[in-house]
Amino acid sequence: MTYCVGLVLDRGIVFMSDTRTNAGVDNISTFRKLHRFDVPGERALVMMTAGNLATTQAVVSLLEERTKAHDDRDPSILSVPSMFQAARLVAETLRGVIDTHASTGQRADSGFNATVILGGQIKGGPPRLFLIYPEGNFIEASVETPFFQIGETKYGRPILVRAYERDMSFADAMKLMLLSFDSTIKANLSVGLPLDVCFYDADSFKCDNILRIEADDPYFAAISDGWGDALKLAFESLPNPEV
Amino acid sequence: MTYCVGLVLDRGIVFMSDTRTNAGVDNISTFRKLHRFDVPGERALVMMTAGNLATTQAVVSLLEERTKAHDDRDPSILSVPSMFQAARLVAETLRGVIDTHASTGQRADSGFNATVILGGQIKGGPPRLFLIYPEGNFIEASVETPFFQIGETKYGRPILVRAYERDMSFADAMKLMLLSFDSTIKANLSVGLPLDVCFYDADSFKCDNILRIEADDPYFAAISDGWGDALKLAFESLPNPEV
Repeated sequence: MTYCVGLVLDRGIVFMSDTRTNAGVDNISTFRKLHRFDVPGERALVMMTAGNLATTQAVVSLLEERTKAHDDRDPSILSVPSMFQAARLVAETLRGVIDTHASTGQRADSGFNATVILGGQIKGGPPRLFLIYPEGNFIEASVETPFFQIGETKYGRPILVRAYERDMSFADAMKLMLLSFDSTIKANLSVGLPLDVCFYDADSFKCDNILRIEADDPYFAAISDGWGDALKLAFESLPNPEV
Repeated sequence: MTYCVGLVLDRGIVFMSDTRTNAGVDNISTFRKLHRFDVPGERALVMMTAGNLATTQAVVSLLEERTKAHDDRDPSILSVPSMFQAARLVAETLRGVIDTHASTGQRADSGFNATVILGGQIKGGPPRLFLIYPEGNFIEASVETPFFQIGETKYGRPILVRAYERDMSFADAMKLMLLSFDSTIKANLSVGLPLDVCFYDADSFKCDNILRIEADDPYFAAISDGWGDALKLAFESLPNPEV
């Protein structure tokens, strides 16, 4: 499986993904699932993927190839005029790859499907965040639903729902997302460290600060250990029922 | 869907289940999923079910009928000599019901499967808690894995993993389980109030205290509201990353 979160804040967008892939529990590997496409000063896009690894790698490769050789009919992710068009391009590429595999009559146990989170900003528009489905359609984050999760989403959702605030700092958002990942990692073998984090600062049109949080990261360990105690204190602070 | 938790403590076993059933999102109903079988002073068993409602109701009805007319070859849940034999009886009944539906060649979209949590105590043995699979086999809770969840288990798991302690009071256990249910209910429409709770006091051989927590329960509302604030304080108490 996989776990990725894209979170819209007043000051930008934060992206976090794990790096574990697995085919069964006895075949796990580490692959980057967070990819960026940028033209500094003009556009910065970050894409995270969940699902069949052959599908998601093909999508990334096709998008990258097209940035090197494209024509007017087939614009690249580095030349489309808006985030909406970028989402459409990624969505069409994704659907195309899935169709190619499925139309040969091949079947994979887990399907060839994949899901994508795409976020960023292109000059002339605001920062936007999209969730792209394997069917090639997509939805956009909004004030009511300011974050998207893909992959193994359930364990880490309650803390996001409870503690997210739109005006959080990047540091707070990172802490929140680490807690969400920690809850998931503790419960599910298919999500694992290292994690990749990327902060997109609104109107900066660059995303050069990709952090990798390794398995022995001292801050992650402190958060993970501290959260158990903090939760217990929170638990004790609530009134007891009369039973 | 459904959400049920059975939790083993030093002082007994706590059972909690929701009551929502659904066939799609446009057809929801309220059904009891927590059932008890007892002979006060001699045995007390509690069963919770998740899965196809026709299957689980048939299992409960068959178990109840057999308590009224049984022979030596076919003991009832009120006459089996041990919790292990009770689990075997429930498991065989469950597999039988599923086989009956499946063997007619019928197919339901969501399958005829169901899963059962069975716990309690029969004189001569300790309190025991089992998780029974649709295949008719089962596992027992242990010191390392002192609780079972069935149904929509993921949202509510992190808080159980973090805050459970074997020597908790029933009041603390109820608070913990309500938080686990609240996290699930907030995230998933297929789990809903009212909730049923049952405390089994070790060596009491009775379980007459089934509580129903209605949608307007003031304690549940206080826990649900208070948890948001308590979590935020816990969140703020953790150190910030340097980003």
